[in-house]
Amino acid sequence: MPRYGFDMIRKSLLAAGAALILPAIVHATPADPGTVQKAALQDDVALDITEGLTTEVGPRLAGTDAEARARDWSVAKLKALGFSNVRIEEYKMPVWVRGEEQASITSPFPAYMAVTALGNSGATGAKGIEAEVVYFPTLADFQAAPDAAVKGKIAFVSHAMKAAQDGSGYGPFGQARRIGPNLAAKKGAVAIVIRSIGTDSHRLPHTGVTMFEKDVMPIPAAALSVPDAENLERILARGQPVRMKLLLTPRFVGEKVSGNVIAEVPGSDPAAGLVVGACHLDSWDLGTGAIDDASGCGIVAAAAKQVMAAGQPRRTIRVLWAGAEEVGGFGGDAYFESHKNEAHALAMESDSGADRVWQIAYRMPEALKPLASRIAAALEPLGIPPTMEQAHGGADVEHLLKSGVNGIDLRQDATRYFDLHHTADDTFDKIDPVQLRQNVAAWATVFSIAANTQDDLLHK
Amino acid sequence: MPRYGFDMIRKSLLAAGAALILPAIVHATPADPGTVQKAALQDDVALDITEGLTTEVGPRLAGTDAEARARDWSVAKLKALGFSNVRIEEYKMPVWVRGEEQASITSPFPAYMAVTALGNSGATGAKGIEAEVVYFPTLADFQAAPDAAVKGKIAFVSHAMKAAQDGSGYGPFGQARRIGPNLAAKKGAVAIVIRSIGTDSHRLPHTGVTMFEKDVMPIPAAALSVPDAENLERILARGQPVRMKLLLTPRFVGEKVSGNVIAEVPGSDPAAGLVVGACHLDSWDLGTGAIDDASGCGIVAAAAKQVMAAGQPRRTIRVLWAGAEEVGGFGGDAYFESHKNEAHALAMESDSGADRVWQIAYRMPEALKPLASRIAAALEPLGIPPTMEQAHGGADVEHLLKSGVNGIDLRQDATRYFDLHHTADDTFDKIDPVQLRQNVAAWATVFSIAANTQDDLLHK
Repeated sequence: MPRYGFDMIRKSLLAAGAALILPAIVHATPADPGTVQKAALQDDVALDITEGLTTEVGPRLAGTDAEARARDWSVAKLKALGFSNVRIEEYKMPVWVRGEEQASITSPFPAYMAVTALGNSGATGAKGIEAEVVYFPTLADFQAAPDAAVKGKIAFVSHAMKAAQDGSGYGPFGQARRIGPNLAAKKGAVAIVIRSIGTDSHRLPHTGVTMFEKDVMPIPAAALSVPDAENLERILARGQPVRMKLLLTPRFVGEKVSGNVIAEVPGSDPAAGLVVGACHLDSWDLGTGAIDDASGCGIVAAAAKQVMAAGQPRRTIRVLWAGAEEVGGFGGDAYFESHKNEAHALAMESDSGADRVWQIAYRMPEALKPLASRIAAALEPLGIPPTMEQAHGGADVEHLLKSGVNGIDLRQDATRYFDLHHTADDTFDKIDPVQLRQNVAAWATVFSIAANTQDDLLHK
Repeated sequence: MPRYGFDMIRKSLLAAGAALILPAIVHATPADPGTVQKAALQDDVALDITEGLTTEVGPRLAGTDAEARARDWSVAKLKALGFSNVRIEEYKMPVWVRGEEQASITSPFPAYMAVTALGNSGATGAKGIEAEVVYFPTLADFQAAPDAAVKGKIAFVSHAMKAAQDGSGYGPFGQARRIGPNLAAKKGAVAIVIRSIGTDSHRLPHTGVTMFEKDVMPIPAAALSVPDAENLERILARGQPVRMKLLLTPRFVGEKVSGNVIAEVPGSDPAAGLVVGACHLDSWDLGTGAIDDASGCGIVAAAAKQVMAAGQPRRTIRVLWAGAEEVGGFGGDAYFESHKNEAHALAMESDSGADRVWQIAYRMPEALKPLASRIAAALEPLGIPPTMEQAHGGADVEHLLKSGVNGIDLRQDATRYFDLHHTADDTFDKIDPVQLRQNVAAWATVFSIAANTQDDLLHK
């Protein structure tokens, strides 16, 4: 179906801006967006949730007892905040857990390397392995290499990811992590190490999931911290053979229970469809999952709570704190499987940290252009312009968007997100309360408008 | 003896500035400071030394094989650079080495804590210990606590160190590390953990030496990373008893050989006294000792080499790459013991990283005020003003200064120094080549003037 572009939004924005000066619209009930936005800029709920999850639960690896504790914590918290229909929806999934991890260069110069296994990595055995390192500056170089250059060696694949506000480096450069290990296994490498998919300069490697094809035996696959990858490049530049010792003992522990936590602000008109705000409750095991994604859960719940406080909305706002996102989107899959036949009016997701929303993107039909413009006008005080790029949601709502549900992305400033992403450094101290509140205000504004509009959000 | 203040320097600066416009002085030989400074701003030797030591040797813990490798590397490098009288001067020292280290909160919430043993820490035994945590927001609070509040517990001593350009927080806040463990042992604590003496927010704890009195049995003593210390404070703020499990297995391995590396640019007038430029070659074991202190060794050697290239100086410039600074200044002690009877004209030390020199301080008698002013005038193009504070050198030259040798401090910007200091993050990627060259230029300027001046630097 046709999607409108930037110019059309801008024109409608001007019209909407003019309309907004009418007092009858500005002070409408039950949930005037301007009033909700102003209240949300004072919000403490998002910070409290982020602090609580990171302090009282900590790391929440999918399918583990820690993730189960997080679900229990969340149910208690969401009930205490006044949400309705708070429940856990369980599902099963295969669970991978980290073991010991050590890497060092044994020759020509001894050097300890900060390393961490990638999710789904194979193991080296308890004694580790030692082999020559073969270096590829980019994934393309590795893809082009003949098997003979790799066979029996530890492949080292680097890249040159740099920080970007829209996080756009993660897609292409992240391929070294996502497909590099499977390729290394097929080429006969005994293991693969990649330069962390990250933009920092700290000795804290970035984990993240990798995927092996069904008929490919997983090999040990790990990320070196950025300073270690650079040190290894300098050692390799000396031109002598370089040998690495690698110990990784992760393992699969079988099928375990994971689950989604769901809570609602019931609307007055069930036929108008659901407004879903998603985040994910699980985290990687190295940090405490503050920016990824406790803050996202804080933002969506705090925004829904702000709308709740302003009076019952027309549409039900459903908060989805999904499980098991990091390791393959099992929570999002399970949600869609269970709820795909319900009427969804709009789906949104917060999963890029806690820094300010800098841009809004839509995925809505032509007929909803005036609504999009009203939303953009309401976000102007928060410094959030619209983009002509299309919303794409996130792992927890992508099935909904692909099935045709309207989507809005409140894009967060990702400039420093990949400094912290999937590292031990993803901790509560990285949260900026002022920027977090701006997120809550943006979400509350969109929830308030979308949950109350008389537009038909179900028929496109 | 009387020391001049800032106003006197400033007045002389004006006079010196006027003198510098005379061409005969500006283009003097053998080592015109302006020409040397200009050449030094293009220097690559300091970066090359820093890169080489961190890449080819890596961590260089005092008294270990790694430090011995660093000495051999240094001798080869300094000879290749054209220095004379390159030699190693050995001494013996007790050596402490790190073992395993793990910390976690076991209740009320399980939480992994990034931890590292302090130098000279006792061990927990292979099974670790578990005890209740008792919290003190400051060292003063800990000092004031009755023994009964600490006995049998793990003391947790925090503080609020913040970054400062002159690094002035390290002295007072660092006392938690230096004297906290001895005090904890005397009060009957089973162990002590401190908030890292650092100004960063990364999960990389800061090690550093602590000292136990002779009749005090060392207890396990460790630093938590700053984010972990803050997490522990949040956990404690819940008001429930907090228990920590701690595993530290460091040990003393007896008396071992360490050594100083010395190299010289021989002067034409041995009676005029030595100009000594010091750094330290050893490093802590967590990082690769880039800012602490490979870069310092790079700076002093590169500056001496710049003066060497400009023609033989009047005074011998002696480069002292001291061993075993971090663990108690054994190299500086040994140097003074062996060389105290030689005539030292000036002693300087570079041991605060690789960021730019922002200030010069002196410790010289009244009679050398005009020399100080000439030096200050020559540093003006590098943006380095004089301060009225007195030079204090560093651990490797402090005995010389205390014995009355002239001292000059080229103070480095320490704003980010304590983000990295004594952590795994002290790696080559933290070096800014432009600021490093400014250091070399400042040092070369001072060396050039001090090694050639006709002033009597020996009789005060």
